[in-house]
Amino acid sequence: MLNFFLMKHFILASTSTLFGEEYLAYLQPAMTALYGGIDEIVFIPYARPGGISHDDYTTKAAGAFAAIGVKVRGLHTFEDPAAAIKSARGFFTGGGNTFLLVKQLHELGLMQPLQTAVNVGTPYMGCSAGSNIGGISMQNTNDMPIVYPPSFETLGLISFNLNPHYLDPIPGLQHMGETRETRIKEYHTQNDTPVVGLREGSWIYVKGDTVTLQGTLSARIFEAGKEPYEVATGSSLAALK
Amino acid sequence: MLNFFLMKHFILASTSTLFGEEYLAYLQPAMTALYGGIDEIVFIPYARPGGISHDDYTTKAAGAFAAIGVKVRGLHTFEDPAAAIKSARGFFTGGGNTFLLVKQLHELGLMQPLQTAVNVGTPYMGCSAGSNIGGISMQNTNDMPIVYPPSFETLGLISFNLNPHYLDPIPGLQHMGETRETRIKEYHTQNDTPVVGLREGSWIYVKGDTVTLQGTLSARIFEAGKEPYEVATGSSLAALK
Repeated sequence: MLNFFLMKHFILASTSTLFGEEYLAYLQPAMTALYGGIDEIVFIPYARPGGISHDDYTTKAAGAFAAIGVKVRGLHTFEDPAAAIKSARGFFTGGGNTFLLVKQLHELGLMQPLQTAVNVGTPYMGCSAGSNIGGISMQNTNDMPIVYPPSFETLGLISFNLNPHYLDPIPGLQHMGETRETRIKEYHTQNDTPVVGLREGSWIYVKGDTVTLQGTLSARIFEAGKEPYEVATGSSLAALK
Repeated sequence: MLNFFLMKHFILASTSTLFGEEYLAYLQPAMTALYGGIDEIVFIPYARPGGISHDDYTTKAAGAFAAIGVKVRGLHTFEDPAAAIKSARGFFTGGGNTFLLVKQLHELGLMQPLQTAVNVGTPYMGCSAGSNIGGISMQNTNDMPIVYPPSFETLGLISFNLNPHYLDPIPGLQHMGETRETRIKEYHTQNDTPVVGLREGSWIYVKGDTVTLQGTLSARIFEAGKEPYEVATGSSLAALK
């Protein structure tokens, strides 16, 4: 089918769920605006959090979308998923394991069709792993490399990478594993792409040429060769590249 | 040179450093036994924690090894690192980023020579990333995929994988990122290799056919299709495969 939307319109959220809340609850107002006028979207279940099946994960997503009157169909149920992406009215990619998600999208040849569909204006929302793939690469994921993807490149819907579930150092913690900040700085010894540390409760909102930090919290920005800095919610990130 | 050691002899430690202690301090007695009679070892600095240079990292390692009377030379200073591995009297691989370490070892063609050297009895110690590479694969690392290695396969010195810096869920933490246990269970939806969650202060000690958990803490064992369980320090892990 034709796409009647010409302006890019998407949400990349740090997390699907806030502590003590229902799945996607805090995003409901943003989802209502994003998917306005759309009655069915395609759900991309490949990240499989905790190993949940594609069917069960789709049922979970459908439950949350029912609250805003949108039907959900899992991408895994289409015989020709590339064609399904081309004709979809909207997308939601759930969180889970980014390596698994990226491997599947590459191996099924879906990265390119999905990129095209979002770039011509089909509304997209991602949470966690589903947001990671909106960046230039998945190289700032927190996930464990449980499978080997053919490439770490992702959709490049934005001109930077995301670190979802960004976590500040925990005061008093005696654990000697690297902090998130240390890990992102290590990334910048090898790469130049800026990274946005997106705290739980925050999301990136893109409409046309605007790129805005939304939600309740500030985000931490990491650029190669600079000290990390905070940006307040509501700030534009359009110049970050 | 000839190897006069015929029995495998190595240590894979969760961390280099315990909270509030000096680098490698808690491992000093174990190192004295491992490297007994050896006056110089080769240090593998490729994991570069925090982006430290190969030279600076080697200096840091040399400082800790001076305390047990062992000289250290960085593998990066040899014109032919494969030959250096073949003639080394002992090895230490420091922690840092496992993706970086594994990429370097594969690209320089060093995985195979190192595996052979350790299997014929050259003493080896790894910490953190340097322990991850002792497993079948690096797929249970906690690190960020800051570079794309040509393969996730590693030395296979033991018949299982390690998750160094193993972290129990932190009570009261309202962060919604996956726990370490969830991540390892996700790994087992895609793979069968057992995983040892090695807490900071513990290490795997291998001498000949013995494989023992050492240090002060128990370890958490994850086998595909089983509930995770604890093993006490001093236990044999030789049957885990």
